[in-house]
Amino acid sequence: METARTELSDLGEFGLIDHIQKKIKLNNDTSILGIGDDGAVISSKGSSIISTDLLLEGVHFDLSYCPLKHLGYKAAVVNFSDIYAMNAFPEQLLISLGVSNRFSVEAVDELYSGILLACERYGVDLIGGDTSSSQNGLVISATAFGQVKEGTEVRRSTAKEKELICVTGDLGAAYIGLQILNREKRVFKENPNIQPNLEGYDYVVERQLKPEAQKELIHWLSENEIRPTAMIDVSDGLASEILHLCQSSKKGASIYIDKLPIDQETFRVAEELNLDPITCALNGGEDYELLFTIAQKDFEKVQNQSNISVIGHIMDEGSGANVISQGGQQIPLQAQGWNAFLKKDLDK
Amino acid sequence: METARTELSDLGEFGLIDHIQKKIKLNNDTSILGIGDDGAVISSKGSSIISTDLLLEGVHFDLSYCPLKHLGYKAAVVNFSDIYAMNAFPEQLLISLGVSNRFSVEAVDELYSGILLACERYGVDLIGGDTSSSQNGLVISATAFGQVKEGTEVRRSTAKEKELICVTGDLGAAYIGLQILNREKRVFKENPNIQPNLEGYDYVVERQLKPEAQKELIHWLSENEIRPTAMIDVSDGLASEILHLCQSSKKGASIYIDKLPIDQETFRVAEELNLDPITCALNGGEDYELLFTIAQKDFEKVQNQSNISVIGHIMDEGSGANVISQGGQQIPLQAQGWNAFLKKDLDK
Repeated sequence: METARTELSDLGEFGLIDHIQKKIKLNNDTSILGIGDDGAVISSKGSSIISTDLLLEGVHFDLSYCPLKHLGYKAAVVNFSDIYAMNAFPEQLLISLGVSNRFSVEAVDELYSGILLACERYGVDLIGGDTSSSQNGLVISATAFGQVKEGTEVRRSTAKEKELICVTGDLGAAYIGLQILNREKRVFKENPNIQPNLEGYDYVVERQLKPEAQKELIHWLSENEIRPTAMIDVSDGLASEILHLCQSSKKGASIYIDKLPIDQETFRVAEELNLDPITCALNGGEDYELLFTIAQKDFEKVQNQSNISVIGHIMDEGSGANVISQGGQQIPLQAQGWNAFLKKDLDK
Repeated sequence: METARTELSDLGEFGLIDHIQKKIKLNNDTSILGIGDDGAVISSKGSSIISTDLLLEGVHFDLSYCPLKHLGYKAAVVNFSDIYAMNAFPEQLLISLGVSNRFSVEAVDELYSGILLACERYGVDLIGGDTSSSQNGLVISATAFGQVKEGTEVRRSTAKEKELICVTGDLGAAYIGLQILNREKRVFKENPNIQPNLEGYDYVVERQLKPEAQKELIHWLSENEIRPTAMIDVSDGLASEILHLCQSSKKGASIYIDKLPIDQETFRVAEELNLDPITCALNGGEDYELLFTIAQKDFEKVQNQSNISVIGHIMDEGSGANVISQGGQQIPLQAQGWNAFLKKDLDK
């Protein structure tokens, strides 16, 4: 069965905007005016938190294994993750899109279906953006907005000595998932008759292609009256984020290797790929978990939470940021996270 | 004399962000937290106006004649223009940048020098963005924020019958400037020994390369207690904007050709290029003037303002949107403005 293909040039820019606008309903009280004017309007009684990400084809995603719907979902969710990392809830999203003629209206619809699914699940309104043709590759710029009472946002720079360092979920899976996708792509390139085999890799591949943001943690913290003293989301790898948090707070940190949360599948597949699971957990990136610090008095509240691991504590600045091995050996943390300027291609 | 060239890969993404951050100071009371955390924080006591533009190399700009500093300035200003078009003042700006390795740190600095000059002139704080490598071409995503008292923004959709249609400044010059730049580029391609000759084209070229937004109008309207009944900025050409305003307001319009403000240089150069100045004024685009409607009672206040032209009035929806020639002939307005999806290249 052939799939219908409508050319973007049949609609034109304004036609495409109308086409997208029809799918959108504003649900949040703070969304006053959406697509269709010179600017969108949101209302705020306190502080607005704003976060933005630029995603470029060939640098941040590879359409040969990333379905457009998943890509749209991920583009939205990674932005929401930054808003949660400020202790706020995302309420609005702007999406700007640069698309070349190789994309059809149906392809753009697929991308938006993922964006709108993420918006629905996270309670966010799509309020605007910009749409343009692109000469090379797909360009997605996503900007999310959240609202907090003035002064209640949680920054990276406010961790204090002896506070506990916590992380949600588990680490390293998204990176391992990317290695599996790259392996299957290479196999497919060598022999297009061999279909990608992703069986047994469900969790790690899903973590790469369809990450989720930590909405529940922010609800749980609020319900349990815990205010993190500092927070950051894990997008570039745990090591990189710990160093950011320490630098911003002018503090050091000790992280215990045996406390790092790693999923069993991540462990197994890492070993299959001859990768060290600990290194993947420390430097893998794209986990979109939340890394946060709490006062010691809050330890009892978090210790039995299956989704939260206490992985270390904040030290004085002079001690530096270190990982402590099971044998008690202290190793300085190094960020080997995502550095798009050094990355030559996705098959690194 | 050789100019120093520092590779972006020498700094890396975080190094580049630090490098940019050092140039920035926040001046507005509403700018609470800028670059360096998961999100920026702005405070608001009413409504936030948000506008975003995606600018792609080869589609929206051509670096062979657009200096990077001018490009940065323009990227910021065209966004500010959208905020003014909502009857608000821009206060914050996000800039996301995708740059390939062919750009040096010095080139990125040039671009930011233009962005920061625009911010300084318009009283805007650069509060964040994202920075990435790009495989192809330069990508700029700009998002501006303004604040208004709740309910005081001016939309496109609220024009009423018999109201007067006004436009600031003059029209068509930026389009004519682009034609001159394209002509000189063709000459240079054919014979690289011939230097571009832009003498006598100062105004039209400046309107293309270094547009300004209509800050003064918003101040003047406020000082003179005029609240436009509807407003839109002229980015895609007057005809296109009138049609947007009419469609959104469910109204028609009559525009008088002999009232269209056209600069003498625009007239002269249009004739030199065998272009019709009226068509350029109606469909040229990138003027970044403001098109707005006012109640008839405000006519006396605007009639002697040299920067404001009253070009027509709002009609009922059934009358449609028309231009009226000097001989009284009525011609339906057609948008032939910028449509990036139909545009094959800049040398159209």
